[in-house]
Amino acid sequence: MRLILLVFALIPAAAAADALPSWNEGAAKHAIVEFVAKVTNKGGKDYVPPAQRIATFDNDGTLWAEQPMYFQLAFALDRVKALAPQRPEWKDQEPFASLLKGDLKGALAGGEPAIFQIVMATHAGMTTEEFDQTVRDWLATAKHPKTGRRYSEMVFQPMVELLRYLRASGFKTFIVSGGGVEFMRVFSERIYGIPPEQVIGSSGKLKFELRAGKPVLVKLPELDFIDDKEGKPVGIQKHIGRRPIAAFGNSDGDLQMLQFTAAGPGQRLMLIIHHDDAAREFAYDRQSHIGKLDRAWDEARASNWIVVSMKSDWKKIFAFQK
Amino acid sequence: MRLILLVFALIPAAAAADALPSWNEGAAKHAIVEFVAKVTNKGGKDYVPPAQRIATFDNDGTLWAEQPMYFQLAFALDRVKALAPQRPEWKDQEPFASLLKGDLKGALAGGEPAIFQIVMATHAGMTTEEFDQTVRDWLATAKHPKTGRRYSEMVFQPMVELLRYLRASGFKTFIVSGGGVEFMRVFSERIYGIPPEQVIGSSGKLKFELRAGKPVLVKLPELDFIDDKEGKPVGIQKHIGRRPIAAFGNSDGDLQMLQFTAAGPGQRLMLIIHHDDAAREFAYDRQSHIGKLDRAWDEARASNWIVVSMKSDWKKIFAFQK
Repeated sequence: MRLILLVFALIPAAAAADALPSWNEGAAKHAIVEFVAKVTNKGGKDYVPPAQRIATFDNDGTLWAEQPMYFQLAFALDRVKALAPQRPEWKDQEPFASLLKGDLKGALAGGEPAIFQIVMATHAGMTTEEFDQTVRDWLATAKHPKTGRRYSEMVFQPMVELLRYLRASGFKTFIVSGGGVEFMRVFSERIYGIPPEQVIGSSGKLKFELRAGKPVLVKLPELDFIDDKEGKPVGIQKHIGRRPIAAFGNSDGDLQMLQFTAAGPGQRLMLIIHHDDAAREFAYDRQSHIGKLDRAWDEARASNWIVVSMKSDWKKIFAFQK
Repeated sequence: MRLILLVFALIPAAAAADALPSWNEGAAKHAIVEFVAKVTNKGGKDYVPPAQRIATFDNDGTLWAEQPMYFQLAFALDRVKALAPQRPEWKDQEPFASLLKGDLKGALAGGEPAIFQIVMATHAGMTTEEFDQTVRDWLATAKHPKTGRRYSEMVFQPMVELLRYLRASGFKTFIVSGGGVEFMRVFSERIYGIPPEQVIGSSGKLKFELRAGKPVLVKLPELDFIDDKEGKPVGIQKHIGRRPIAAFGNSDGDLQMLQFTAAGPGQRLMLIIHHDDAAREFAYDRQSHIGKLDRAWDEARASNWIVVSMKSDWKKIFAFQK
């Protein structure tokens, strides 16, 4: 009888060993497997019922790459070029004029207002269904400037395995990202197995309209919600209504989500991915203008959160790499 | 072989007969069962994969009663009384002064601004966890003025069976209600089996704060979103990101949700509950100031949506009734 119990107790760890093949044996993998074994051990003191096994993941830099620029910004820039023939006035209007001349730096010199203009010009003024199709078409053709791969291939294989492993362990997995919710929902189910209703992101306002008797939702050029920093726990509460027991990020934008997750009772898993592999991906942290990891890194060290080294903890980063 | 196929084809209907015991045999029940059989019939032309089986339910008047006043308003009024000793200024300040004298009509004479003041005074200025506890305590003690039952017993038994039947048929069930999201989430899982992340409602703004180093979310006295009328399809898009294939309501506030649902391709189920049973519940429709059913009723007739008569389609309304 004892032997049988022992065998069952070993199953989570054994299953995990197979479930996370792209993770090197080490402290990070061990901490993940141990956490999952504890919260799924029925009868154990750390048991968490499946309904409460909420895991939230940042997207850019956590599930897929974010260099040399956020992929959604690459989409927006490509859309500006595609729309330019219908918008002749852009030739004399910043930030579009610089963009169309290929001067990205000049275009972005306008800071947040310039980015806002680019996003609104490319993400609003159409129905949600039209936008969905535009993103779908872009993903099918656009290529990452460094690897030449489709953006949907720029996904971190160890994280895809982790998502699957958590779901197989009764977790509900959510994306909680500063990216646009309508943008991410186009690919989240296909590349991560995360359905649209489990994607939380930044959003613009929507308007219900009857067009020739047919109801549509029009994307308005007005911000509704920014799902970053303090916005992440707010987005989690608005959308999920309960506190995650596991949260995954890679930058200071994820700090408050990790703090919020850490503050609940019982076992908790907080994990930060450190981009330290210039050869296989990119190397950046405290000084980066994209995905800056500074305050969250300090807090991870002070609070014993897991810091994953992409270089040493991951056997493989992208599925297309050997 | 043919016989075997025939037997399998009959299973959904047979299972449904057991799954909906509080529904009388009739057009409404038959339409529901037929719809479910079609969309779950793998290989059939109307098959819908489980991930797309989204069903949305209004709450007040659709899943539980809403007379003689919305239960959340009853909660707010009880809270005003409970908080009055700490708010001596309310004695001279409308709408609180009238309310505290027991003059509900006088208090609500101020219209929407008065209701807004009452809601904000009782739903904001505390953390989400504090609010959750307040609602929990209220539900455990408050009683419905007509039946003397707990509000959580004022749930329509046929709808609870319908929710279960849809989930057993691979549907994901959501609440899409004008009620407050933080209010409904306190009871949705317990009384409907709907987890908090599948509840969409009206909401106030939230603020992330560290209080003595502990992260909390504070409910601000500021509206964020009204999930009613045109807001319902917007709330569905913001939260779910795909169009329901079945939607259930009882009033004009549900019209746009039903229109949005009806406009998608393939099999669709749109259902409206008509409160026509004064003896067992309440009877109201076109002239009611709560749960007015007028335009949506006309459209239901014009578009062949199902209209459920509580009187003749339901054997039983509440579980506590014989």
